[in-house]
Amino acid sequence: FLLSDEKEGRKSFSAVQVERQGQAERSVLMSCPPKINEKKFLKYFSRHGDIKKYFFYERNGLYAVVEFAKRECVESLLEATKIPCLSNEFPMPFKSRLLSLSHYGSAASPNQQSGQQCQPQTTIPIDQLIDRLSRKESIDQQVTSLMETYQLTDDNSRLRFLVCSLLQDIAAAYFPECTIKLFGSSVNGFGKLGCDLDMFLDLDDISGRRTKKQESGLFLEYQLKTVSTERVVTQRILSFLGECLDQFGPGCNGVQKILNAHCPLVRFFHHPSGFQCDLTANNRVAMKTTELLYLYGELDPRVRHLVFIVRCWARVHGITSSISGAWITNFSLTIMVLFFLQRRNPPIIPCLDHLKDLAGPMDNSMIEGNDCTFVSDLSKIQLQRNTETLDQLLHEFFEFYSAFAFSKMSIDIRKGKEQIKPVKNHLHIQNPFDSSLNISKNVNAAQLERFVALCQESTWLLEQTKTNTPSGKGGSASTPWGLATLLQPTNVAEIKSNRK
Amino acid sequence: FLLSDEKEGRKSFSAVQVERQGQAERSVLMSCPPKINEKKFLKYFSRHGDIKKYFFYERNGLYAVVEFAKRECVESLLEATKIPCLSNEFPMPFKSRLLSLSHYGSAASPNQQSGQQCQPQTTIPIDQLIDRLSRKESIDQQVTSLMETYQLTDDNSRLRFLVCSLLQDIAAAYFPECTIKLFGSSVNGFGKLGCDLDMFLDLDDISGRRTKKQESGLFLEYQLKTVSTERVVTQRILSFLGECLDQFGPGCNGVQKILNAHCPLVRFFHHPSGFQCDLTANNRVAMKTTELLYLYGELDPRVRHLVFIVRCWARVHGITSSISGAWITNFSLTIMVLFFLQRRNPPIIPCLDHLKDLAGPMDNSMIEGNDCTFVSDLSKIQLQRNTETLDQLLHEFFEFYSAFAFSKMSIDIRKGKEQIKPVKNHLHIQNPFDSSLNISKNVNAAQLERFVALCQESTWLLEQTKTNTPSGKGGSASTPWGLATLLQPTNVAEIKSNRK
Ligand SMILES: Nc1nc2c(ncn2[C@@H]2O[C@H](COP(=O)(O)OP(=O)(O)OP(=O)(O)O)[C@@H](O)[C@H]2O)c(=O)[nH]1
Ligand SMILES: Nc1nc2c(ncn2[C@@H]2O[C@H](COP(=O)(O)OP(=O)(O)OP(=O)(O)O)[C@@H](O)[C@H]2O)c(=O)[nH]1
Ligand SMILES: [Mg+2]
Ligand SMILES: [Mg+2]
Repeated sequence: FLLSDEKEGRKSFSAVQVERQGQAERSVLMSCPPKINEKKFLKYFSRHGDIKKYFFYERNGLYAVVEFAKRECVESLLEATKIPCLSNEFPMPFKSRLLSLSHYGSAASPNQQSGQQCQPQTTIPIDQLIDRLSRKESIDQQVTSLMETYQLTDDNSRLRFLVCSLLQDIAAAYFPECTIKLFGSSVNGFGKLGCDLDMFLDLDDISGRRTKKQESGLFLEYQLKTVSTERVVTQRILSFLGECLDQFGPGCNGVQKILNAHCPLVRFFHHPSGFQCDLTANNRVAMKTTELLYLYGELDPRVRHLVFIVRCWARVHGITSSISGAWITNFSLTIMVLFFLQRRNPPIIPCLDHLKDLAGPMDNSMIEGNDCTFVSDLSKIQLQRNTETLDQLLHEFFEFYSAFAFSKMSIDIRKGKEQIKPVKNHLHIQNPFDSSLNISKNVNAAQLERFVALCQESTWLLEQTKTNTPSGKGGSASTPWGLATLLQPTNVAEIKSNRK
Repeated sequence: FLLSDEKEGRKSFSAVQVERQGQAERSVLMSCPPKINEKKFLKYFSRHGDIKKYFFYERNGLYAVVEFAKRECVESLLEATKIPCLSNEFPMPFKSRLLSLSHYGSAASPNQQSGQQCQPQTTIPIDQLIDRLSRKESIDQQVTSLMETYQLTDDNSRLRFLVCSLLQDIAAAYFPECTIKLFGSSVNGFGKLGCDLDMFLDLDDISGRRTKKQESGLFLEYQLKTVSTERVVTQRILSFLGECLDQFGPGCNGVQKILNAHCPLVRFFHHPSGFQCDLTANNRVAMKTTELLYLYGELDPRVRHLVFIVRCWARVHGITSSISGAWITNFSLTIMVLFFLQRRNPPIIPCLDHLKDLAGPMDNSMIEGNDCTFVSDLSKIQLQRNTETLDQLLHEFFEFYSAFAFSKMSIDIRKGKEQIKPVKNHLHIQNPFDSSLNISKNVNAAQLERFVALCQESTWLLEQTKTNTPSGKGGSASTPWGLATLLQPTNVAEIKSNRK
């Protein structure tokens, strides 16, 4: 039941984005009083138009998202929204769709506490997950449970698009034709509840308007200030938006402008959603990478399942980290899983060059001199028949990387074959859209060694598991088995002692 | 013919503002190619809707203002407006109604150079004015000519409201319910071509929304950041808008943020209009003062005529200055003229207390503890019959201030009578809306002495003029006479030598 997308028929990445963006534009986000009568709530909002969908969530208080049938309903709602009247503080007026719902006068007869209907927007601690998995009766059930716990829910996805849309309102007020788009794990199908929100400001839609044909002898252009480089444009606009969020942006805390980075960004914490946000600009290759990951994830359910298990395993054992450093990133790890799946016999997913061969004329994409073309229509992709089960694949994944010739070979999902690697980096994973770049050049020898050692240890553990059986059938205390064993930090104590 | 407003029937200040603001919101401002075929121009713009009015002006190149019948026409036009494509520079995208019109391809057959139809947006040099006045045959004709040369034209007024409206677009994009309004000489009826553009950001309309009655048990508010004082709100918003104009605002140059002043402001030069702009915030008493000056100017044509002559005379002789210092300001000088007109027998204009007595319930206005109430409906004001001619009044004005007891008395247009003044300031002119304040406390003894000496000198000159007659009837070289004599710097050489 969690794989509803797969059952519905597989939509292209851009179709999903357009649908989600539309929902977000028709939605508002609000804090709510702790107890709320749902009937009155619906009646109140229905005055402004039909409600298509709504949900509540808890985050240091109750919040609600309301999606209307039409954008005009939102306008009508905002028209009726007041500026708060405070006694000791002065509000800084600011137009946004982040609102605050209150009871007027005495909080009349609360018939219902809606907290009951809230789905979680964050993951549970690892020991609880291990306990949950240990009670399952099959590996399949364990996978389902892991996915349910970690995968972004429909509500969480809506919230992500909504936060992005709130930001887009701010940018679009001044910068015509500019859009803000989600990329990374929020939309690539491999997002875990609580992952960060990667967004980019797309100034390139402007060029579409630039090339329009003239119909007359006269034409009009905006009068604009100009600067010498595109980088300065990006820096100034990001700096300005950062200033705006910092000074006025409701719910935006801890705004940091990191403008001198290779890819300038503004980082902030969006309090009402709990999302850590990174706003970059003109990051279009990353968008293509995101689409590629989405596409691979849609091709076969085993892709996402394996990626989630491996990411979760890597996180528990400290192979990946939430802070940046010499660790393997989630992104690199995902590419490693994809590569492994391309190397099955027969392959579970095709190589990127094959996806490029299937591309239609609409799929052509050159970005900054790199050919980012690949097929977007999922129905054009014919898969080979491979019937390996997930526990087989997991076992083979660990075996594969236990024995991989990291010192000589690079990982290349474009060809779907290992390539001779240049000497300088320990782990070499080719950027899918720029073969001259290594996406894991940050990884040092120690981290790579730890990864290989953990793969070996986990291979051994899974061989044990073959003779294992689930210990408890929904009972109270259960002995970890199957996936749960892999996620137990204690099982790899000897490897931990190698850690630096 | 220049006093069309007076013939049309006298509109209230707010009626004029609303009408002008409406025109401005439906208008766009653009730079044009030097030669333009007016027919093609009209055809091009008509595609987006009916054009209500348009005009061209010259300012380091040709500019045009086009007013459409509806705001939607502007939206349609902007929809079709392109972002320029530049070879060496990168445009910073920014939504505005300041555009640039060009010819596509070869600038096909320019049938007409529209420069011919341009009205001046600035004044002529004083020696040219003196020459022009000298050719007139009567004092009345001289006054008419002076007014024509100096008074804001209909086009110039439109341009002022348009620049303000462009700025309001920028503010209103983020700050709901906030408006930007013109005050000072741009709208008080005493503006001279080329005078600065005084604007203020009105955040107080917000309070209207705050007090709305609730219709239901639930209510929505914007979520906002707050700060400790209203001054901080003002400073932050002005700072942010200043940043925006500086970074992205097309045509806005030399942006200065003067945020620690008593009344924080952002000052900049708006290149396409040539206006020096001052943007302040929550300056509502100044708005009432502006309305009061407008009202006095509407009551009798002699009010504006005398103010213009006196201001012009003061400027030529260095009594007022474009830089701030110990000089008498235009504002103070205007109040002095109004006071003089209240002291006629019978008075030409009533005192402010009388205007307050005539006020209706809608006119009630308390601002920051000051009672700013006075009648807005001009038809309620009954004037006394005074038939003095302008040359009589001018003569008497100089006589009046030649003999005024500046050392003991203050000028008070509220009572319309001089009051005993406190000792500390040389010139004491009561603020009409706060009698404890002196609007001319900047004036030092030397400047006041110069003013009095010039009044005496001018009285003498006008007595000479009585025997004077116009020397040339439209001929070539004319001997200055009448008003022209008063404006000749050489006639007051002995006084000039007193200048410090
Ligand atoms: N080419 C390239 N793209 C990268 C690299 N790191 C990140 N990206 C891209 O940027 C996106 C966001 O980066 P992250 O937030 O670090 O990773 P993520 O995929 O969102 O995964 P999380 O860890 O869940 O945030 C990724 O999905 C990639 O598309 C890199 O080193 N090279
Ligand atoms: N209360 C008070 N108001 C002032 C003072 N100076 C200016 N104002 C107000 O602010 C408005 C704009 O000031 P200015 O730009 O200096 O004067 P102005 O009337 O626009 O005349 P110009 O010299 O043509 O700009 C005036 O019309 C007054 O309403 C002052 O000293 N006291
Ligand atoms: Mg991410
Ligand atoms: Mg002024």
